[in-house]
Amino acid sequence: MRRPKVPDVVVRRLPLYLRAVGDFASKDREIISSHELGKSTGLTAAQVRKDLALFGEFGKQGIGYNVKFLMNQLKDILRLRDPVPVCIVGMGHLGQAVLRYNMAYHRSTSEGTEMLRIMAGFDVDPVKVDTTCAGVPIYHTDELSRVIGEMGIKIAVVAVPAQRAQEVVDMCVKAGITAILNFAPIKLETPAGVKVHTADVTLELQSLAFYTH
Amino acid sequence: MRRPKVPDVVVRRLPLYLRAVGDFASKDREIISSHELGKSTGLTAAQVRKDLALFGEFGKQGIGYNVKFLMNQLKDILRLRDPVPVCIVGMGHLGQAVLRYNMAYHRSTSEGTEMLRIMAGFDVDPVKVDTTCAGVPIYHTDELSRVIGEMGIKIAVVAVPAQRAQEVVDMCVKAGITAILNFAPIKLETPAGVKVHTADVTLELQSLAFYTH
Repeated sequence: MRRPKVPDVVVRRLPLYLRAVGDFASKDREIISSHELGKSTGLTAAQVRKDLALFGEFGKQGIGYNVKFLMNQLKDILRLRDPVPVCIVGMGHLGQAVLRYNMAYHRSTSEGTEMLRIMAGFDVDPVKVDTTCAGVPIYHTDELSRVIGEMGIKIAVVAVPAQRAQEVVDMCVKAGITAILNFAPIKLETPAGVKVHTADVTLELQSLAFYTH
Repeated sequence: MRRPKVPDVVVRRLPLYLRAVGDFASKDREIISSHELGKSTGLTAAQVRKDLALFGEFGKQGIGYNVKFLMNQLKDILRLRDPVPVCIVGMGHLGQAVLRYNMAYHRSTSEGTEMLRIMAGFDVDPVKVDTTCAGVPIYHTDELSRVIGEMGIKIAVVAVPAQRAQEVVDMCVKAGITAILNFAPIKLETPAGVKVHTADVTLELQSLAFYTH
């Protein structure tokens, strides 16, 4: 499959398409149009076609997309075909909340998102180290490199205090992590080839302001 | 100004437009095209024009949008023209992290997002009640209704454990809150007219899987 340079904003829309396609698949739909996909995701049909065309010609003009084929293609593009091991660094309430959210979600979904598996937590607090949280083992942060290597972990959620975030990210990058979800309110320095998304509470709150009355 | 029924997905894009327009404004640009706005936000020019056209004719065909006018219109649409008081219910590490993020952001930005002001935290822990966190007073959750009313708080961030979230949301709604950012991993029941966004860590992690290699 082609894997061209894709703008990050498009990558962020792919899970929306995957979710929509998963909904249609669970209703045993075989074909969907770009208009239906647009309606489910709130984008124009043209935007849907343009986004998906970046990865090749999935649809047939005048017919639409094959639901199962598109779902599999989206999983391939997002590298969600095989389980993706994830770790959380910082098992304070934020890290624990993310972990419990992830675990609760896995129990309630059938949309193929079970492929994201939180396999390990890290913390420096001796009270937490060598315990489990929602069934997930917690290791000392000193073991980060070894555990990430052994478990083949690909994505790190960084939920440590701001002043420790850069140090932790440097350790993650050295251990082979290439994608980071950062909750610390700082801009992180990472080498090219490492992607950082910062959870953006500000954008969420701004869009919610629309609904105040 | 017209305030038609706007799909939530469009509302969620408005802060992206506001941020982009703010960037152009800070560079003293007077006019921007839908193409430039699209490039900054990763959307097609057609999508930008379609989204903004929902609120009236802001731009001039072949010329573009007046930066200052559009910024003010977006702030009006998002109701960010005047300070929007926000509260956080649940001052565990998650609530504290959101609060500190918001406060750090205010110090580092000039894009008009300073209009979201976290004015109060709520918790049931007697150790936290009547203290402050990053300068923000923490009240007992029993005082939620009174404080929300007195401070004119419009948006609540719900960061309590899942089993307490519905109860807290009911209290918020009764007190007049119409927009909620929910971090608890449950589907909340709210009456019509109350908007709930649930912070979706799953979508974030799915899009990050794209960057694993």
